[in-house]
Amino acid sequence: MDKEVAVIGVGQTKYGSFPNKGIKDLFIESYLDALANADKGIDPKDIQEAYIGSLQTGGNQLGNMAALMVEQANIPYIPATRVENACASGSFAFRAAVMAIKSGMRDVVIAGGVEKMTDLPRERNRFWLGVSGDVEWERLAGTNFPSIYAMVAMRHMHEHGTTKEQLGMISVKNHANASKNPKAQLRFAVTLEQYMSAGYFAYPFGLFDLCPVTDGASVVILCRGDLAKNYTDKPVWVAGAGSGTDYLAIHDRKDMTRLMAAEVAAQQAYEQAGMKPEDIDFAEVHDCFTIAELISYESLGFAKPGEGGKLIAEGHTQIGGRIPVNVSGGLKAKGHPIGTTGIGQIYEVVNQLRGEAKEPERQVKGAEVALAHNVGGSGGTACVHILKI
Amino acid sequence: MDKEVAVIGVGQTKYGSFPNKGIKDLFIESYLDALANADKGIDPKDIQEAYIGSLQTGGNQLGNMAALMVEQANIPYIPATRVENACASGSFAFRAAVMAIKSGMRDVVIAGGVEKMTDLPRERNRFWLGVSGDVEWERLAGTNFPSIYAMVAMRHMHEHGTTKEQLGMISVKNHANASKNPKAQLRFAVTLEQYMSAGYFAYPFGLFDLCPVTDGASVVILCRGDLAKNYTDKPVWVAGAGSGTDYLAIHDRKDMTRLMAAEVAAQQAYEQAGMKPEDIDFAEVHDCFTIAELISYESLGFAKPGEGGKLIAEGHTQIGGRIPVNVSGGLKAKGHPIGTTGIGQIYEVVNQLRGEAKEPERQVKGAEVALAHNVGGSGGTACVHILKI
Repeated sequence: MDKEVAVIGVGQTKYGSFPNKGIKDLFIESYLDALANADKGIDPKDIQEAYIGSLQTGGNQLGNMAALMVEQANIPYIPATRVENACASGSFAFRAAVMAIKSGMRDVVIAGGVEKMTDLPRERNRFWLGVSGDVEWERLAGTNFPSIYAMVAMRHMHEHGTTKEQLGMISVKNHANASKNPKAQLRFAVTLEQYMSAGYFAYPFGLFDLCPVTDGASVVILCRGDLAKNYTDKPVWVAGAGSGTDYLAIHDRKDMTRLMAAEVAAQQAYEQAGMKPEDIDFAEVHDCFTIAELISYESLGFAKPGEGGKLIAEGHTQIGGRIPVNVSGGLKAKGHPIGTTGIGQIYEVVNQLRGEAKEPERQVKGAEVALAHNVGGSGGTACVHILKI
Repeated sequence: MDKEVAVIGVGQTKYGSFPNKGIKDLFIESYLDALANADKGIDPKDIQEAYIGSLQTGGNQLGNMAALMVEQANIPYIPATRVENACASGSFAFRAAVMAIKSGMRDVVIAGGVEKMTDLPRERNRFWLGVSGDVEWERLAGTNFPSIYAMVAMRHMHEHGTTKEQLGMISVKNHANASKNPKAQLRFAVTLEQYMSAGYFAYPFGLFDLCPVTDGASVVILCRGDLAKNYTDKPVWVAGAGSGTDYLAIHDRKDMTRLMAAEVAAQQAYEQAGMKPEDIDFAEVHDCFTIAELISYESLGFAKPGEGGKLIAEGHTQIGGRIPVNVSGGLKAKGHPIGTTGIGQIYEVVNQLRGEAKEPERQVKGAEVALAHNVGGSGGTACVHILKI
């Protein structure tokens, strides 16, 4: 799919807790940011369709929210579709936009994500996040996502010798990266000592293994490859768009230390791009829990199966390393506004590829190819996108 | 888009109240029905992707439900996306499947819809259905869909002289059609006298103006045009796939007697198909309330603006008339399992075009071109598809 689809503008709100902003405010802010980002300008009239990822955590506008978003953005009447695949809603919205353009039916499309999570009390948030695992066999049995991913982590430790310190290195790295990201939610560094001594949530997870609860929105604008020059001198190309699913309940999976949805998605994306893991210069991956980033190294072929712990321990995924991962701070420290996350990853990747990450220490130097890896729930769904300049 | 995308198999559960069936049961039943429907057979391994429309009324599996459906259907790992645009979720899922094939990324794709509504007590159902209107300005002000559509009906009566009797004729027609449809929920005839004397829900609506609460699922299988002959000798072609949105709250619309989302969608579909309203042999339209069918006549160009009442009064939309509408019984009497409805319309249209409607009195004779019109909420979203043999 070489140069068929271009990203021409990207926008994002800050991630955090914004008591005075609702989903409409957040969406409009990121949409206007994306419009302004296309250096030659985009006439909103050119936008023909919108795909919006959201879990609608808390039930703000459970039905028809995509129509409400384009109405509020003052681009009414255009088709708008809400895409919901739990925490992977954003990347599936992006992929739908790619397909709409490749289908020949649309020229300019926006893909957005929006989530407002902090309005809810903790108990309600726990409910809402649990709805993306297997409700019948997991949630109703009392599990929540920290406990499910904790079981995955324990199994990974048992099978592959992964250590709590290795999980800690991921947390430390992502907090350090987020401290340089002006749009991140948790902009503070964490030491390995602080990580190791933090109270436990679900063994082996302590406070610094878990991503926060986040409000935020992100919008990216895509267009047909041959039209990109009308909008920007710095298009970023979609080279691969892969996606997959897995058994929803982890007890149904052949190997609970692997995320098959992500492996299937990665394989498709590499194939479409005609690339291998070695061709990727940096990646934004789905680290809702530290173990999730560690497993992503294996899903994406950056490390051999079972050797994710070694990759982080040897420092390869640090900025300046062989394959920097989550230079944005990741879900862990940038924040994780569920349906927004997949689009927020594209926002980071595009800025990095253009050399516009702004904070010099966070910029990956000379990067030409990047990968975004977004997982829904405990791995029920996943998308992997490869972008390049 | 001539002969680019074919429908090769269609399946559907009965519509009704099924206390012993959950969303998995309903989905599998319709999926197996669709597989069996392709006369040359479909190897499930050929299916590369799934799009599933659902509002998840009642919150069965609010997140990641699409992955759960393909897992249960024993086609795990393939990408699956939940599409949610309220009552138009099904048709937007169908359109996404069309785009996936037209994009060149997929050859064989399923589009499904599933909804389980009857588990909920009435009060909860009222809440769930209200979430697809504007939550902030309509639902929180106490409105529900009967009251919103009743206001639309009152305005249509005021502006265009539409009468309660004309609304009644739509109800009588659709009940008569449903009585011949073995998969319909309300298989009984209603007389105009019964209609006129029924108790009021929200003036001018009485009992027989409203569609029922319904459980049901439907699945259709689509493929790349040139592959269709491998699966069936009776492909039905997707000639047009249009879609649009409108302001969510009816007070924001320029003219509350019109559904702009449907008008935009119809215009696109006609343009893609190179057709006009006169080319349509019959249509399945979104009659969640009798007024919605009447307005659809105008949105789709079967009647001039304001003259929908005249069209039904003159009998043109009866079976055997100039443009039969809702030969299935429509949402009114076939039933309206929210996210399923748009796919169920395709099921009916395909069976009719193939001459396989089974009940001879319901079969539209010699039909070659059909239209399906699916609306989300009170018109916030809409899709119009044109299919032909």
